[in-house]
Amino acid sequence: MNRKMILNIIGKIVAVEAAFMLPALLICLVTHDGRGAVGFAVTILIMAAVGVPSLLLKRKRQSFNAREGFVTVGLTWIVVSALGALPFLIGGYIPSYIDCLFETVSGFTTTGASILSNVEALSKGMLYWRSFTHWLGGMGVLVFVLALSPLTGKDSGENMHLLRAESPGIRISKLVPRMRSSAMILYAIYIALTLVQFLLLVGGGMTVFESICTAFGTAGTGGFGIYNDSIASFNPFCQWVITIFMLLFGVNFNIYYLLILRKLRQALKNEELRLYGVIVFVAVALITANVFRYFAGFGEALRAAAFQVASIVSTTGFSTVDFDRWPQLSRMILLLLMFMGGCAGSTGGGAKVVRVLVMLKAARRSVYKVLHPNSVRLIHMDGEVLDEETVSSVHSYMITYFLLLAGITLLVTVDGKSFETSFTAVVSCMNNIGPGLSAVGPAMNFGSFSIFSKLVLTLAMLIGRLEIYPILVLFAPRLWKR
Amino acid sequence: MNRKMILNIIGKIVAVEAAFMLPALLICLVTHDGRGAVGFAVTILIMAAVGVPSLLLKRKRQSFNAREGFVTVGLTWIVVSALGALPFLIGGYIPSYIDCLFETVSGFTTTGASILSNVEALSKGMLYWRSFTHWLGGMGVLVFVLALSPLTGKDSGENMHLLRAESPGIRISKLVPRMRSSAMILYAIYIALTLVQFLLLVGGGMTVFESICTAFGTAGTGGFGIYNDSIASFNPFCQWVITIFMLLFGVNFNIYYLLILRKLRQALKNEELRLYGVIVFVAVALITANVFRYFAGFGEALRAAAFQVASIVSTTGFSTVDFDRWPQLSRMILLLLMFMGGCAGSTGGGAKVVRVLVMLKAARRSVYKVLHPNSVRLIHMDGEVLDEETVSSVHSYMITYFLLLAGITLLVTVDGKSFETSFTAVVSCMNNIGPGLSAVGPAMNFGSFSIFSKLVLTLAMLIGRLEIYPILVLFAPRLWKR
Repeated sequence: MNRKMILNIIGKIVAVEAAFMLPALLICLVTHDGRGAVGFAVTILIMAAVGVPSLLLKRKRQSFNAREGFVTVGLTWIVVSALGALPFLIGGYIPSYIDCLFETVSGFTTTGASILSNVEALSKGMLYWRSFTHWLGGMGVLVFVLALSPLTGKDSGENMHLLRAESPGIRISKLVPRMRSSAMILYAIYIALTLVQFLLLVGGGMTVFESICTAFGTAGTGGFGIYNDSIASFNPFCQWVITIFMLLFGVNFNIYYLLILRKLRQALKNEELRLYGVIVFVAVALITANVFRYFAGFGEALRAAAFQVASIVSTTGFSTVDFDRWPQLSRMILLLLMFMGGCAGSTGGGAKVVRVLVMLKAARRSVYKVLHPNSVRLIHMDGEVLDEETVSSVHSYMITYFLLLAGITLLVTVDGKSFETSFTAVVSCMNNIGPGLSAVGPAMNFGSFSIFSKLVLTLAMLIGRLEIYPILVLFAPRLWKR
Repeated sequence: MNRKMILNIIGKIVAVEAAFMLPALLICLVTHDGRGAVGFAVTILIMAAVGVPSLLLKRKRQSFNAREGFVTVGLTWIVVSALGALPFLIGGYIPSYIDCLFETVSGFTTTGASILSNVEALSKGMLYWRSFTHWLGGMGVLVFVLALSPLTGKDSGENMHLLRAESPGIRISKLVPRMRSSAMILYAIYIALTLVQFLLLVGGGMTVFESICTAFGTAGTGGFGIYNDSIASFNPFCQWVITIFMLLFGVNFNIYYLLILRKLRQALKNEELRLYGVIVFVAVALITANVFRYFAGFGEALRAAAFQVASIVSTTGFSTVDFDRWPQLSRMILLLLMFMGGCAGSTGGGAKVVRVLVMLKAARRSVYKVLHPNSVRLIHMDGEVLDEETVSSVHSYMITYFLLLAGITLLVTVDGKSFETSFTAVVSCMNNIGPGLSAVGPAMNFGSFSIFSKLVLTLAMLIGRLEIYPILVLFAPRLWKR
């Protein structure tokens, strides 16, 4: 393994992160937030001290193999989070470093779970940084660096390994032959969608600052609110805009590229998109009917149901009502949506719709196989045969996921919180949602967990965002030998 | 599909079931339980009316193919349960037929979940029958018939399909070349172990009736108690005997066959057995430490912890204390043990230890594969290479299991009971445990569920006991065409 090369790329990313802190620093200065400004300034200096030496390391090779891709991604996210947490600590806004780390990992992984009971106590600079981590983490920090700088002159295709390790889903979304161009297209779509949402929110009556932070939180499907009641205080128009954009950011970005290429028919044929649409529709209908009696009319019930469904299925985690108080059926539907999450190649978390689709198809086939033991039946997806290796890797992924879910839940249970709290806290963190149920419901926060549980949940968020392996390989003793 | 042949075997099994009702009828007569006697007598007549005609059907072929095996097993279990439920209804002990069916399916599937709040109101004949369904269902009704009567003169090996569909685990346990002999050996071991436990319980001070019923419930890993406090009122010696036998009945019966053949070393090398032992030991140790403060001393805490762990891991479901009141950590450990269950080829339910073992090994390999993408790494089990088809069928099975778990939980949630109640009720039924947590905890019962939920949970118990496919294929529209 080429350690120098890995350090070099991490250094590069830390430099980019430092650059991205400058707007937050500026906001602190403009809003006369002295300690916030000190927080960001000192952090930027630390980043320079850490980043510059590793930038000077000379790289032997210019591209990554698969193993290096995973290790680099895992380490990068840990380093970026560890450093990104410093402004909260140095600025004195969050006294415990573990809490700062939890909050920052929650930001970058686009979870949106918070240890803060009163987010309104944060300064604007801090709120901006907190929401911005969602935006950067949504599409991926490495994808960003890949889009900016050609890691290799020849773009040999091996940088695919970096992208693959950071991008969610079962297949890598290579839109065009050159990786760098693919990354640029993805970020261009991402920026364009964010911008449109921002303009609609401003047009809908939200302030520029509110609109920026909310658009960041929506685009990354993160869910950090800048008010204690999340999105509840914004007007119905803005709530609908956010609902629609949460759903849009849960769609595979390849679909948008197809739309740009005017391949509408191909886009609409996408089975993952269809299942996503059907599930959202059914969930909204069921919940609207289930919660109807709690609201003044159909319109209000529909808005609340649609918002909460969009928020959970896209794994954003914003809320306009306390859905923890909803009837059990609605709570259970939301909990199941947490497991599924958004589409592959979106900024959403969870298992991804496409994996659910593959599992359903494979389960159906397993029944067919019982009836026709000697037949060979292939699984089709979007009109093509899905190779068995993909099916088995989806199964393998999900099994590892469930084993980790069980293990992590057991660890968090040591705190002694109720089963519903512990379980949904882990489900929420591993799927990068934000709120869970009961004591981690949308009106609550993660502040009351022990330091141990906070660390475990922090790890769970990273495991979820990076789809297990980039984090798990770091624990392989084999990796650190020699 | 040869419908006549399937009807013929079902008729045969109904006849066997009728024969097995005779002792219960006799008990009713001896204890002057008039309505109970009527219940059993009328049921036996109905069974004769149903069973005899189908016995007269002439079979074309003499053996089953895989599809017929699954369908026969699925239908047999439904018919046997539907008829076995009648004495409770006709005798007037349980007024609703849905409740009778729930109770009987719970018996045959060795779940032990009850809709009765006061089991002591049942007569001895009813209690005997209820416990006996555990014993018969534990090893399998078809395996029993297979052991008794040679289904085919040549024993062509195709009856394997019947045994496979009814026996739990990832591989069929064919102890000796002839299927009939294998089935006989299994039942011989089963009867011997049951007898030893019965004698120990009688020796320990329990009455003959108590000992019989408790031995039936233990052997089948069922868990119907004959007292409202389950096993709590029996003395410590008897509780320890039951603890040890619950664990023994959770072990793969192949191990006992190896012991009979004096292959001790080979038996101890069995990886599934080792993992089972380690998990039981660790769970007992953790829970003993966790609940220590609730008991008068170490001995009592150890006894309670060991009993409850043995009861849950073997999926029996007896209880000596209300573990629902234990600290969250202990409750969570027990909940995780519910998912795992006993060893393959035992009478225990759950996913089976061997599947957990395969999943753990596969998960470990998936991390290895990330580090060494081009290497081929095989999974070993008991010193042999595990073929990839077995690994992928375990994954496929577990994924289908989790999808069903999610779907069934959603259906049961319609009742509006708490998440913990609904979820653990389904977990308990699908894994054939008996008690769950909260409102279905060991001190509670399933009586308050709606008719719809009771039917769904009944199906869940059958799905769990028969390992999904024999029940699922019955829902395939393809099966009923032509």
